[in-house]
Amino acid sequence: MTLYFSDSPQHPALLICELCRLFYDNNWVTGTGGGISIRDVDGPNPNIVYIAPSGIQKERLKPKEMFVAELPGKILRTPNDESTGQPLSADLAKDFKYKPSACTPLFLSCYNLRDAGACIHTHSQNAVMATLIFEDKVEFSMSHIEQIKALPQLAANPETGKIEKVGSMQYYDTMVLPIIENTPHEEDLTDTLQKAIKDYPNATAVLVRRHGIYVWGENVWKAKVYNEAIDYLLELAIKMHQNGIPLVKK
Amino acid sequence: MTLYFSDSPQHPALLICELCRLFYDNNWVTGTGGGISIRDVDGPNPNIVYIAPSGIQKERLKPKEMFVAELPGKILRTPNDESTGQPLSADLAKDFKYKPSACTPLFLSCYNLRDAGACIHTHSQNAVMATLIFEDKVEFSMSHIEQIKALPQLAANPETGKIEKVGSMQYYDTMVLPIIENTPHEEDLTDTLQKAIKDYPNATAVLVRRHGIYVWGENVWKAKVYNEAIDYLLELAIKMHQNGIPLVKK
Amino acid sequence: MTLYFSDSPQHPALLICELCRLFYDNNWVTGTGGGISIRDVDGPNPNIVYIAPSGIQKERLKPKEMFVAELPGKILRTPNDESTGQPLSADLAKDFKYKPSACTPLFLSCYNLRDAGACIHTHSQNAVMATLIFEDKVEFSMSHIEQIKALPQLAANPETGKIEKVGSMQYYDTMVLPIIENTPHEEDLTDTLQKAIKDYPNATAVLVRRHGIYVWGENVWKAKVYNEAIDYLLELAIKMHQNGIPLVKK
Amino acid sequence: MTLYFSDSPQHPALLICELCRLFYDNNWVTGTGGGISIRDVDGPNPNIVYIAPSGIQKERLKPKEMFVAELPGKILRTPNDESTGQPLSADLAKDFKYKPSACTPLFLSCYNLRDAGACIHTHSQNAVMATLIFEDKVEFSMSHIEQIKALPQLAANPETGKIEKVGSMQYYDTMVLPIIENTPHEEDLTDTLQKAIKDYPNATAVLVRRHGIYVWGENVWKAKVYNEAIDYLLELAIKMHQNGIPLVKK
Repeated sequence: MTLYFSDSPQHPALLICELCRLFYDNNWVTGTGGGISIRDVDGPNPNIVYIAPSGIQKERLKPKEMFVAELPGKILRTPNDESTGQPLSADLAKDFKYKPSACTPLFLSCYNLRDAGACIHTHSQNAVMATLIFEDKVEFSMSHIEQIKALPQLAANPETGKIEKVGSMQYYDTMVLPIIENTPHEEDLTDTLQKAIKDYPNATAVLVRRHGIYVWGENVWKAKVYNEAIDYLLELAIKMHQNGIPLVKK
Repeated sequence: MTLYFSDSPQHPALLICELCRLFYDNNWVTGTGGGISIRDVDGPNPNIVYIAPSGIQKERLKPKEMFVAELPGKILRTPNDESTGQPLSADLAKDFKYKPSACTPLFLSCYNLRDAGACIHTHSQNAVMATLIFEDKVEFSMSHIEQIKALPQLAANPETGKIEKVGSMQYYDTMVLPIIENTPHEEDLTDTLQKAIKDYPNATAVLVRRHGIYVWGENVWKAKVYNEAIDYLLELAIKMHQNGIPLVKK
Repeated sequence: MTLYFSDSPQHPALLICELCRLFYDNNWVTGTGGGISIRDVDGPNPNIVYIAPSGIQKERLKPKEMFVAELPGKILRTPNDESTGQPLSADLAKDFKYKPSACTPLFLSCYNLRDAGACIHTHSQNAVMATLIFEDKVEFSMSHIEQIKALPQLAANPETGKIEKVGSMQYYDTMVLPIIENTPHEEDLTDTLQKAIKDYPNATAVLVRRHGIYVWGENVWKAKVYNEAIDYLLELAIKMHQNGIPLVKK
Repeated sequence: MTLYFSDSPQHPALLICELCRLFYDNNWVTGTGGGISIRDVDGPNPNIVYIAPSGIQKERLKPKEMFVAELPGKILRTPNDESTGQPLSADLAKDFKYKPSACTPLFLSCYNLRDAGACIHTHSQNAVMATLIFEDKVEFSMSHIEQIKALPQLAANPETGKIEKVGSMQYYDTMVLPIIENTPHEEDLTDTLQKAIKDYPNATAVLVRRHGIYVWGENVWKAKVYNEAIDYLLELAIKMHQNGIPLVKK
C-alpha cells in the first residue's frame, strides 16, 4: 500500500475523489456516469496512473477504491486486493467485485498518444446535446469567443514528433473537436478515439456522440480547466444555435 | 427505540435524511414534495422498512421522525409515540401529529411486487414535463444514449417467477417507462401503479402524469443511481424534443 | 437587547439570516433584492415582528441588523441604536445608516389582514417571467399539478370573519394568484396589495408585475414551504407555456 | 510582506479569494476565466490595489498569489518575489511564473477614470449571450424591472467633474450599458473601454462582445451587488427576448 498511497493532499487518489465530487455537482457524472484518471507526474514513477473504478457513485469514491496501472498498460493493483474480502465502501453489496473502468483503454490511449497527465470523461449534457444538434457532422467547430483562449495551442515538436503545448489558442482561432460515433461497449471506442487523437493533433478533447466527452491535459489541473472551458463553450454553443447565431464567425 | 434506531451512518433512518437533503438541492422535493423509504436489507429483519412522514420539509428531517413498518404492511412505530407529546422538530406546530406518507401504499407495492430495497418518489420537473410533452402517450421511450447503461436489465427468474436484475441495459436498448394518470388522492394511485409494475416487468420506475416519478432499486444506493440516471435522461429528452430530435433512434 | 434577541436557533432574527442565505442560493434575493420578516409567534409577545433592513446583501445579514416592530406597526428598535455609532457589518460604509425595508408596510399588511406568522418577498425570475408572459392578465391561474397540494385551502371563519387555513388545496383545484402592477416606490404598493389580499381570500401570495412576489404563511416554515411550492409551479408554468401546454386543464 | 497582507477577514487579498469561489459557483470564472481587483480603500494607502493573477484557477486562489499595484499603475509586488522560487500553489508547474492579469490596464482604467473601489470581470454566459443576441447594437438597454433599483444613479460632481453616485436608479429608468468589440489581446481593449466609460457616464459596467463584462463600484461589496443585479437583468433579458417581450417598455 505504501507504494501507491499517501496522505498528501495532492496525491492522485485523493484528487480523483475531490474532483469527482465537484463533477457530480455539475451533473457531469451522476448515476455512476463518467470517470477520471490521474498520472502521478510528480511522483517517483511518472508512469503510474490512478483510475476510478467502474459502476461506482463517483461523488462517494474513496482513495483506496482506485485501480493503479503502469504505462503503457499493466494493472498493478485492484481494490479487490484487500485481505478482508469486503468491498471498501458500505454502499456496495457484500459480494461486490471492483471492475476497472471501461474507460481504461481510452484513458491509456490519451496517456500513450499524447503524454497526458490526466484524463477526464463526463456525460455532460452539453456535450451530448452538441453531438445531437449536429448529428450529421463529424466535428464540432466554434470561433471568436474569449473563453477559447483557455485552451492550449498544440503543435508537433519538430525533434520528437510529439504533440506539445506551445501556447494558448487565440480569440479568433477556431476550436475544432472531433465527434466519434458511440459503440455498444465503451472499450470498443478505443480504435476510433485513437484515430481521432491522431487526426486532430490540435484538439485536447474528443466528443462521443450520444455519450459524452473525453478531455485530457498536461496535468490534472490543466485537464480540469480544459474540461471546464470546453463545457462552457458547448453550453454557449447550444444557446447560440437555439438563437440562430452561427458558431463560427466569418 | 433500540429496536429501530442506531448511530450507524448506514442506518436507513439516517440515510433517508442524508438523501432528502441531496434531493432538496436538486429541486426534487421542495415544498414538502416527494418522499423516500428504505428497507433494512442488511439488518436483523430485512422486512423492516423506514418511511419519511407526510407534509414535512424533506431537507430538515430527523431520523426519529420516521415511520417504521414491517412488510407486507404493518405499521410498527409512528413518530407520535414519544412520551413528551411534542413534535420532534421545532419547525412544527405544537399540536402537530405526524401522519404516514400518502406514498406508503405505493412504496409497499414496490417492496412487495419487486422485492425492492428502497423506493424514491420525487416531484422532479423533468418527470412532470416528460408526462406533459407526451400527454397523449401512456409510456415514455428513449434509446441510444450512453446513460441508459446505468439502468438495470430485469428478467423473471424462471424458478421463482420474481423479477430480478440480470445485468445492465445496453446502449441501443429502449428504456420504456409507463406513465399512469394522477388521482386526487395519492393512495388512489396504488392500483394503477401496481398494474404498471406488473405490465412493465423491464421498468424500474413509473411516471405519474402531472405529478412526478416513483423509482425503486435493489438497495438504497441502486435506487439513488437509477433515479439520477432516469432524471438525466428525462432532462435530455426534453431538450431533444425542443430541438426536434427523436427520442428513439431508428 | 435582551428583550429582542436570544441564542435560540429558532429565534426569528437567526432564522431570517438562515433563510436569506438559502434564498440567495436560489437567486431569489441577489443584488440586495427581496426581504423577509418573521413574527415571534411563540415568544412572550406574538405581536413582535423582525424585519431585514433595506439595501443590504441578504446572504450576509447578521441577527443584530434586524429592525423590530410591534403590530400593528410601531418600530421598537432600529439597528442604528448601537452605542458605537458604527454599522454592524464590515461590508458597509462607516457612515451607513440602516433604513427599514421598503417592504415594511407590505409585510405589515400581511400580518394585519391575514394574521400571518411570516412574510417572504423575492425577486424570483420565475415570478417576474410569469407576470411578463401574461402581461395583459391581472391574475395567474394553474391547475392539475400535484405540487398545488402543498398550498393551503383558506376560508373565512364564520364566527370571526378571519381568513384561516382549513386544509390543503386539492390536485384538481385551480391556484389563482393576483398580479398587481408595480409602482416606482415599493411602499406605494401597499394599497393595491391590501386590495388584492382582500379580493383574493383564497390566495397566500401576490405577484407584482416586473418585480417579484409576496408570500406569507401561518409561521415561518409554512411561508417557506408555500414560497417553494409556488416558485416550483411558476417555473413549471413557464416551461409549459413555452411548450404550448395550457396551464389550466379543462 | 507585512506592508501588503494581514489576517483581517476584510483584507482585499482575502476577499478576492472569497469572491472568486462564489463567482466560480456561478459559472462566471470557470476555466481560469475572469478576474477581480480590490482597492484598499480603508487601508493606510487607499491607492494600493490587489489584483488576481493571470491564468489561474480562480476558485483555488490564495491571498499570497496576488499582485499589488499603486495607482495610477505602478506594480509594487508580484507573487514571484518569494525567496523559495516555487509557485505558491501546488496546482502549478514547478517552473511557473505568475503573470499579472491581462485585465490589469482595464481595472486601472476603472480606478483612474471612475475612482472605483473594486472591479469585477466575468465571462458570464448571460453577458456573452446579451452581446450576441444584439450583435448589431453598440449598447444594451432595459427598463421597468424592479431589480434596476439596485444600480447606482451616477452624475458628475459640479465642482470636481468626477462621476459620483447620487442615489439609486428608479424602476422606470432605462439601464444602458455600452457594448465594446472584443480584441485578440485583452490589453488592447483599454482604449475602447476608456472611451465607453467616458461616453456612458451613467453606466457602472461595460459589456465586451463575445467575451463578458466589466463591472465596478465604490467598494468591493457595491461592485459585487452591481454585478449580481446586472447579471440577473441580463438573464431575464434573454428570457424576455426569447418570449418576444420588449426589453424597454414604452
